[in-house]
Amino acid sequence: MDKYRYKLTIEYLGTNISGWQKQNTVISVQQILEDAIYQFSKENVILHGAGRTDAGVHALGQVAHFDLVKFHEPHKVMYAINHFTRSHLVGIINCVLVDSDFHARYSAIARHYIYKIINRPGDIVIDFGRAWLINKVPLDLESMKHGAYYLIGKHDFTSFRATACQSRSPIKTLSQLEIIQVGEEINFYLSAPSFLHNMVRNIVGSLVLVGLNKWKPEDIKIAMDAKCRSAGGVKAPACGLYFVKVDY
Amino acid sequence: MDKYRYKLTIEYLGTNISGWQKQNTVISVQQILEDAIYQFSKENVILHGAGRTDAGVHALGQVAHFDLVKFHEPHKVMYAINHFTRSHLVGIINCVLVDSDFHARYSAIARHYIYKIINRPGDIVIDFGRAWLINKVPLDLESMKHGAYYLIGKHDFTSFRATACQSRSPIKTLSQLEIIQVGEEINFYLSAPSFLHNMVRNIVGSLVLVGLNKWKPEDIKIAMDAKCRSAGGVKAPACGLYFVKVDY
Repeated sequence: MDKYRYKLTIEYLGTNISGWQKQNTVISVQQILEDAIYQFSKENVILHGAGRTDAGVHALGQVAHFDLVKFHEPHKVMYAINHFTRSHLVGIINCVLVDSDFHARYSAIARHYIYKIINRPGDIVIDFGRAWLINKVPLDLESMKHGAYYLIGKHDFTSFRATACQSRSPIKTLSQLEIIQVGEEINFYLSAPSFLHNMVRNIVGSLVLVGLNKWKPEDIKIAMDAKCRSAGGVKAPACGLYFVKVDY
Repeated sequence: MDKYRYKLTIEYLGTNISGWQKQNTVISVQQILEDAIYQFSKENVILHGAGRTDAGVHALGQVAHFDLVKFHEPHKVMYAINHFTRSHLVGIINCVLVDSDFHARYSAIARHYIYKIINRPGDIVIDFGRAWLINKVPLDLESMKHGAYYLIGKHDFTSFRATACQSRSPIKTLSQLEIIQVGEEINFYLSAPSFLHNMVRNIVGSLVLVGLNKWKPEDIKIAMDAKCRSAGGVKAPACGLYFVKVDY
């Protein structure tokens, strides 16, 4: 039987959510959305996301797809889901019909992340839970950019993947790693066709060691060449990470 | 007796606070801070702010001063206050000693605000309570800029002041009114030596009428020339407004 396939673009604040993926005992973005879809359509669906995000990680443009037997106007699907998910700070910002060969995960050709740091001696207030506060000022921006240079391109990222990472290969192509500072805010822009588990947070954590002058920029290359997670730097906290966009 | 005068730079999320000014029955930023100062110093102080903000309005750089009989290192004052105010999403981001002739309100020579709009058909999620969501897209940016042009400079802003405004004169000098769009985010940057009550929100609300093509840009000038609040446009909601900075 033919079904209607919907592509959702999803924004969420991850602070109080145990990540994207459905689990038994805790609340996940996937579960919140599948429940909402059931509420308005009375159809049990499986939602396929473009990428998993960990607990506390946010999204500005996560993408997912699902199928419905009965047709509903896409903009009505968006409003119907939002009615049920808004209180969780999960919301659909775009909904369109797509061909049945579209797959949120397998059709993706690039994924984009931003990691946000606030670098100031004072407290973090408005951005509490939305950025990594680093009190030691200033982080050495030029050294971090120098260190980042070693990571761009196709490499074995074993030193920057979670030991629990299930990806078959540690070889990934980091197409962008740009660091831009505006006042007290330092944003890391990372793009790749796909990422390893915790790869962005482990890279940012390592570059911050460079920014604090605890590592030299060249130590990034030494860590990468070691091809061992224990050679990589500390993992940056989840709160600074935003899954921004998926290209198809 | 000589006292020590401290200048605080304060950030707060106004969402759950009834504005800057101390009131009897509700929680205010002033009250939260005066209580915190008492907690660590055991001195009852009066905190003088650079400007009042309404309920729901945020601050990235509100400024206030207060005096203590006993000397405390400024950075310790900052940490001590933050210990007590953090849970309210009120925080000190800078604290310095100043001369006794410094006054947070009367020494100020310019005040800067940002008003943030999210303009998209989808829901507002991460910025819920932190921006004004306008679903009709796109707002007519060029027309809003044209309308803003009439407001820059020294004018009688009666049409854009709250009827309850206590300022002696409605004449103010708006030195900056810039509108910058980045993707779905439209930010209004307003600067003046001082503002009337609700002036920023009434100006932004009127310009949005222009952006929605309900008003022509010239209607801004007609409204201003009427010198009557009822000729001005609707008041923009508090949630989009940020008190950014004070110059001395």
